[in-house]
Amino acid sequence: MPRSKTDDKRVLVIGLGRFGSSLALELVAHDWEVLGMDSSPRLVQTYADSLTHTVVADATDEEALRQVDAQDFNRAVVAIGTHLEESILATSLLVDMGVPHIWAKAISRRHGRILQQVGAHHVVLPEHDMGERVAHLLSGRMLDYVEIEEGFALGKTRAPNALIGRRLGDTRVRARYGITVVSIKRHGEEFTYATEDTVPQKGDVIVVAGRTSHVERFAEVT
Amino acid sequence: MPRSKTDDKRVLVIGLGRFGSSLALELVAHDWEVLGMDSSPRLVQTYADSLTHTVVADATDEEALRQVDAQDFNRAVVAIGTHLEESILATSLLVDMGVPHIWAKAISRRHGRILQQVGAHHVVLPEHDMGERVAHLLSGRMLDYVEIEEGFALGKTRAPNALIGRRLGDTRVRARYGITVVSIKRHGEEFTYATEDTVPQKGDVIVVAGRTSHVERFAEVT
Amino acid sequence: MPRSKTDDKRVLVIGLGRFGSSLALELVAHDWEVLGMDSSPRLVQTYADSLTHTVVADATDEEALRQVDAQDFNRAVVAIGTHLEESILATSLLVDMGVPHIWAKAISRRHGRILQQVGAHHVVLPEHDMGERVAHLLSGRMLDYVEIEEGFALGKTRAPNALIGRRLGDTRVRARYGITVVSIKRHGEEFTYATEDTVPQKGDVIVVAGRTSHVERFAEVT
Amino acid sequence: MPRSKTDDKRVLVIGLGRFGSSLALELVAHDWEVLGMDSSPRLVQTYADSLTHTVVADATDEEALRQVDAQDFNRAVVAIGTHLEESILATSLLVDMGVPHIWAKAISRRHGRILQQVGAHHVVLPEHDMGERVAHLLSGRMLDYVEIEEGFALGKTRAPNALIGRRLGDTRVRARYGITVVSIKRHGEEFTYATEDTVPQKGDVIVVAGRTSHVERFAEVT
Amino acid sequence: MPRSKTDDKRVLVIGLGRFGSSLALELVAHDWEVLGMDSSPRLVQTYADSLTHTVVADATDEEALRQVDAQDFNRAVVAIGTHLEESILATSLLVDMGVPHIWAKAISRRHGRILQQVGAHHVVLPEHDMGERVAHLLSGRMLDYVEIEEGFALGKTRAPNALIGRRLGDTRVRARYGITVVSIKRHGEEFTYATEDTVPQKGDVIVVAGRTSHVERFAEVT
Amino acid sequence: MPRSKTDDKRVLVIGLGRFGSSLALELVAHDWEVLGMDSSPRLVQTYADSLTHTVVADATDEEALRQVDAQDFNRAVVAIGTHLEESILATSLLVDMGVPHIWAKAISRRHGRILQQVGAHHVVLPEHDMGERVAHLLSGRMLDYVEIEEGFALGKTRAPNALIGRRLGDTRVRARYGITVVSIKRHGEEFTYATEDTVPQKGDVIVVAGRTSHVERFAEVT
Amino acid sequence: MPRSKTDDKRVLVIGLGRFGSSLALELVAHDWEVLGMDSSPRLVQTYADSLTHTVVADATDEEALRQVDAQDFNRAVVAIGTHLEESILATSLLVDMGVPHIWAKAISRRHGRILQQVGAHHVVLPEHDMGERVAHLLSGRMLDYVEIEEGFALGKTRAPNALIGRRLGDTRVRARYGITVVSIKRHGEEFTYATEDTVPQKGDVIVVAGRTSHVERFAEVT
Amino acid sequence: MPRSKTDDKRVLVIGLGRFGSSLALELVAHDWEVLGMDSSPRLVQTYADSLTHTVVADATDEEALRQVDAQDFNRAVVAIGTHLEESILATSLLVDMGVPHIWAKAISRRHGRILQQVGAHHVVLPEHDMGERVAHLLSGRMLDYVEIEEGFALGKTRAPNALIGRRLGDTRVRARYGITVVSIKRHGEEFTYATEDTVPQKGDVIVVAGRTSHVERFAEVT
Repeated sequence: MPRSKTDDKRVLVIGLGRFGSSLALELVAHDWEVLGMDSSPRLVQTYADSLTHTVVADATDEEALRQVDAQDFNRAVVAIGTHLEESILATSLLVDMGVPHIWAKAISRRHGRILQQVGAHHVVLPEHDMGERVAHLLSGRMLDYVEIEEGFALGKTRAPNALIGRRLGDTRVRARYGITVVSIKRHGEEFTYATEDTVPQKGDVIVVAGRTSHVERFAEVT
Repeated sequence: MPRSKTDDKRVLVIGLGRFGSSLALELVAHDWEVLGMDSSPRLVQTYADSLTHTVVADATDEEALRQVDAQDFNRAVVAIGTHLEESILATSLLVDMGVPHIWAKAISRRHGRILQQVGAHHVVLPEHDMGERVAHLLSGRMLDYVEIEEGFALGKTRAPNALIGRRLGDTRVRARYGITVVSIKRHGEEFTYATEDTVPQKGDVIVVAGRTSHVERFAEVT
Repeated sequence: MPRSKTDDKRVLVIGLGRFGSSLALELVAHDWEVLGMDSSPRLVQTYADSLTHTVVADATDEEALRQVDAQDFNRAVVAIGTHLEESILATSLLVDMGVPHIWAKAISRRHGRILQQVGAHHVVLPEHDMGERVAHLLSGRMLDYVEIEEGFALGKTRAPNALIGRRLGDTRVRARYGITVVSIKRHGEEFTYATEDTVPQKGDVIVVAGRTSHVERFAEVT
Repeated sequence: MPRSKTDDKRVLVIGLGRFGSSLALELVAHDWEVLGMDSSPRLVQTYADSLTHTVVADATDEEALRQVDAQDFNRAVVAIGTHLEESILATSLLVDMGVPHIWAKAISRRHGRILQQVGAHHVVLPEHDMGERVAHLLSGRMLDYVEIEEGFALGKTRAPNALIGRRLGDTRVRARYGITVVSIKRHGEEFTYATEDTVPQKGDVIVVAGRTSHVERFAEVT
Repeated sequence: MPRSKTDDKRVLVIGLGRFGSSLALELVAHDWEVLGMDSSPRLVQTYADSLTHTVVADATDEEALRQVDAQDFNRAVVAIGTHLEESILATSLLVDMGVPHIWAKAISRRHGRILQQVGAHHVVLPEHDMGERVAHLLSGRMLDYVEIEEGFALGKTRAPNALIGRRLGDTRVRARYGITVVSIKRHGEEFTYATEDTVPQKGDVIVVAGRTSHVERFAEVT
Repeated sequence: MPRSKTDDKRVLVIGLGRFGSSLALELVAHDWEVLGMDSSPRLVQTYADSLTHTVVADATDEEALRQVDAQDFNRAVVAIGTHLEESILATSLLVDMGVPHIWAKAISRRHGRILQQVGAHHVVLPEHDMGERVAHLLSGRMLDYVEIEEGFALGKTRAPNALIGRRLGDTRVRARYGITVVSIKRHGEEFTYATEDTVPQKGDVIVVAGRTSHVERFAEVT
Repeated sequence: MPRSKTDDKRVLVIGLGRFGSSLALELVAHDWEVLGMDSSPRLVQTYADSLTHTVVADATDEEALRQVDAQDFNRAVVAIGTHLEESILATSLLVDMGVPHIWAKAISRRHGRILQQVGAHHVVLPEHDMGERVAHLLSGRMLDYVEIEEGFALGKTRAPNALIGRRLGDTRVRARYGITVVSIKRHGEEFTYATEDTVPQKGDVIVVAGRTSHVERFAEVT
Repeated sequence: MPRSKTDDKRVLVIGLGRFGSSLALELVAHDWEVLGMDSSPRLVQTYADSLTHTVVADATDEEALRQVDAQDFNRAVVAIGTHLEESILATSLLVDMGVPHIWAKAISRRHGRILQQVGAHHVVLPEHDMGERVAHLLSGRMLDYVEIEEGFALGKTRAPNALIGRRLGDTRVRARYGITVVSIKRHGEEFTYATEDTVPQKGDVIVVAGRTSHVERFAEVT
């Protein structure tokens, strides 16, 4: 019985630079079958043992893509970063081959726009996104910050004095700051969920959720 | 009375590429005073209007750093990405000038290690981190995923059938999947916090927190 | 009263190389208002006197395109030939600006396909098309040949012996060769139309129309 | 009995870029025997299966030309486009070898002039010619346009209202516009010849012949 | 009264490298009016004081040549050495402008042939000619050697013992060696002509004329 | 019995460009044993059949020179032209190896001076010398010209009217022009020596000898 | 019994340029076991016979360093000079591998500082140090000079007249000049130590020790 | 009265890289008048304030050297390091200008040899010399080492146990090790001379003089 396309865990990863290789290795760690392709023999050799399959090939050459049956993949990632042209060419070929889920890395908004125009389904902007994320950590009050959706963020911070020694349900953080404490990490322990009955101690680290402006203000004010 | 160093909201951002400029613009949007420095007149001109101050200067030249009083900044970001050498030189100078909080972008683990050896306080690996993050989204079941700490993650996903129409407090997701539903976004509304009494509807998007393995399994199984 | 967009005879020509400049000069000769843009000051200077307007600008920079009101043009030609990337970037920008008629030159079929995916309305392949056209002239029997539509061609050739001294209506060329003699050029005169009563003389040049295979065979057989 | 030089269908094509390869493939499709030569092993390999013969060789080296018996060819095409110098060298060698029909591609008028001075029999300027051709299509009224001789052109256009529903013999287009309708393509059919009795319908496409100025005016006025 | 073209002593020297500048300076020393042209401002400046006129211009640009009235020169030297392409372009332009005496320097026989095909009237091959000339001096017996015509040479050598102390008319050098002693330089004096009555002394230097093979043998044998 | 160093006809020619190869081929034609050395395999291959021995080697590497026993050669020519540095290095090595007769080609006077300082015995400046030589031919009156010694030249010219039909002994050219007619070439014949009794005819070509200024004036006046 | 790490005479020398190779050869001459590593096959081959072991490897690749057991060396020298980046990368790797004695060559003070920050134990600045040393020899009075410690130097100079023919113990050089004569070299002999009883002769060369300012003044005054 | 050439303290330093600038600054610190010349405006600007005079000029251009009266300098240093060719050209010019004391930096032995052949009076090899010097310090027993003459060295080392607490005159180090203790540095004090009566303490640092082999052995054995 032929393998159903939608259930497979196979990915074609084109470009094995920082982004592509990190992504590919993470997938392999979660039992995905990854075919890593790069035009650089050196890079391919580096990941030959750690990825399921690797191939030295030029992804801007349709013939090369056909030889690895790119058209049979359900998912492909175009992780070519340095050369706009190659990134667009490879994406265009995969689109015309009918790959249903194409992720592509862009190095600028316009590059991202072109990838969409050409037909990529998901576009990622690592440098840009990470730049925005780190901006929230500079004050030193927030330990991590991530916008999970336009306007809604999660922030990791040390439990502020206003919460220490008090039952969360009594602190009215939701009413006063517009945020919810969703997880807590006690000194020496792992993160766990927080409830109304949780009583943060000095040194505990908490994760709060809320509107971006609320999360930012909570980190600053407390 | 001189301005206290620890309270200021001033940042020196060296390198106005994708990462540096995104970071700098986000900071300005949050009322930080940003001095953007780059050796490229073109890049500096691009951001001259949107950043607080900009200067065309070579950050590997100590004299150039002194002229903008780099030593008086409480925070600096070395966002030079392409040239390892310049990134290390600039970081080394800032360390010797005594800047207390130095963030530096690395393009590889070894680069990151050297930046730490030289004295950078925080090292960021955008390409690498984003690669790992995107790996979790490829199956299409998770809409976003971020590891907020080694071993603890947050995942955004559509509410699975097992939760739909049921009070969260009754579903025992914590016991069965090891995760907590911390936020919920109903169709056409914004994200808000989830409680024991929340009843997800078909099409709602939820954010769950828990150990990385639990979050991943929850997304796959449900 | 504002000028109607659809009636204007204004064109934005981006790229003043061989193709772009030939096109622009031909348009000016037919009373079009041409704005020629190129990033090379040398090329722009060369055509400064012969085109309506010229500007040194980088067409991959949205700001530069806005400054010449590219969005107000009804027609634009992206004649950038050497750099795939710049050709795609400029086309993408014009598409997003809403220019209704975008012509773009491609250097390969794949390049042409990408330009279409990005949104170009007409794609031209000069090297490729001219290569095919010249192929028909090599035997020396055909003096010019052009495929006016897939499968239908026009060919210029010396009047073959079979037609000389005979009324065209009597030669039954349509029945025998599947072609029609549509024009004739007598020695020392200009081309004119041919009718059933036309009697070709030795040395006359004729234009015939018909299916590509018929035109080709006519040139070979006669 | 030795093959007569004038009757053979053999061509030497030097340079397998866009122009050369398109030309060579078209020739092969018409049963010519094509020897494709290029100094790039990659290009030669690309066309190794589709051309009659291919060879990796430097056409600026007389010895290399002798080894493929270039002097025995009746026709040669110098399709080297990027390097003026190589184009001239190869043409000069073929001239001195006595090849009777040499076609050469030029990238500028001066280049074309030199090729003639050196002895090429036919010079082609693809970028330039196509630029002029496309200029006539920009208004959108003409669908194709080609100058078959200095001052005499063929144009493809939708049948104008003035002709629709009327017998061509009655419209007096020749008298009024100076052009002849030579072919017509009815909706859903192929092109065929037009006669005095042809009655164009709305949506029909016609090919007209006449002086360049007449063809242009016909397209604009109608 | 207009200056006659044929009598003028004006030369246009294009290219001021080693060959061009040496030639130009020698001409100026003999009261020629030299216009030196080069695209390198540095080279032009170097010779600005020593040549009659100098101009920084690109000789491959027809407009530039027209601006110095190149068409009015009776003689022009294309001394461009490094770039084949520029040498050919400049020569082609001068030919089409009708300059009646064009000298051009070639760096290879094929280059020389192309310059002739393009229309240069005289072609010079310095490296090649000097290489052959020096070959005759390596044995150390000949002090200088120059082939004044194919097959006829002049050689400078020390007077051999066989001639010393004897009247030239008595030595029968013509009969025995096939050469004629045409000039003689006595120790401490200048060269002068030699006659039948000349009696060479030890240390005198003589110039002999004759067939190349005779001159060579004379130098070796004596 | 070992071969005497001074009698051998062996030369080491380093650098097989225009100058070096022309020199080497001329030597081989005169029965010299030539070892041609160049670092370019392509150049060495070109001359592999025509020179006695050839070797691909880097003449700036002492070890490479030792391997061909450069120290045993009596004569060496450093014909490296493009790279000053390599020319000087090779010459320096040959000097220290004790090669007694080193000829070196220079591209400028300073280069020539350095070669002398380093120890080269003879320095040649082809571009410079040929430039001066050609300067004398531009007027078209002299057919060839060569300075055989500072201040003394030989010139080839058509026999002027003043000499035609008259016995040379009667023309007093020596007294009137300071030159001697040393050779004559009658129409259709080869050059031969001229005597007092020679009577030049119209169209004869003569070689005259004399002071440079006299030879020049003779060519102009006559 | 395993070899003690502290007693071994094994060194890893990374980079076989001028500095690295001179150092490595000197060590081999003193019976050290040297492993020379360079990424250039040419350089490695040059020293393959003279060093104990050599390997072509990229010292910025941790895997390559592990393959030669770099972590087991007690001493390593990073003699990479041209590329700052490679020098820092290699040093960083050796530091993390725990090599206890790392010497690194720097090309600038800042480079040296970074190498120290990264963890190098000794940093050498050849160009800089030699520049200062040669400065003391320019006057021609001192034959050599070396600062053996900040502020204390040794100088080699000819014995000044003031000391000639007199017992050193009687000259009071210590009291008058602040220096001590520590060694003496008599004409035609080797250096030996000097005592109070030594009587310098004209032409003797002496080594004096003392404060840098005293040594300098002694050389100038005497 | 004109300044005597031999007494002046003026130096021309050509090349302001690491070596040249260190040398120049050291000279200025000792009251020399230094003219620093470099073709790099950036380097010249860096040292404009710290050197007596600086000039941006190309030292391979005789005219440029004349403009700074290079011929009037008594001493010149050619500190050009990267380009062999420029180093040789500048040295050659200074030699021909008659500068009596020319120091030149070489990057290889052959380069040094050529500089001598051209006429440099002193040649320095920083990378090479420093490499040999550092080789002696690797064992960690010697703190510094310098060969003051072929075969005679000075070494800095901690006082070995065999000398501690004993009068130097009693230790017979000269007899036993062939070296002389010439200076001593007691803990916390400066270096001073050592006499027969000196009694080294634990932790003292001494300088010893002797044959290179003796100094090396003394450091190892003790």
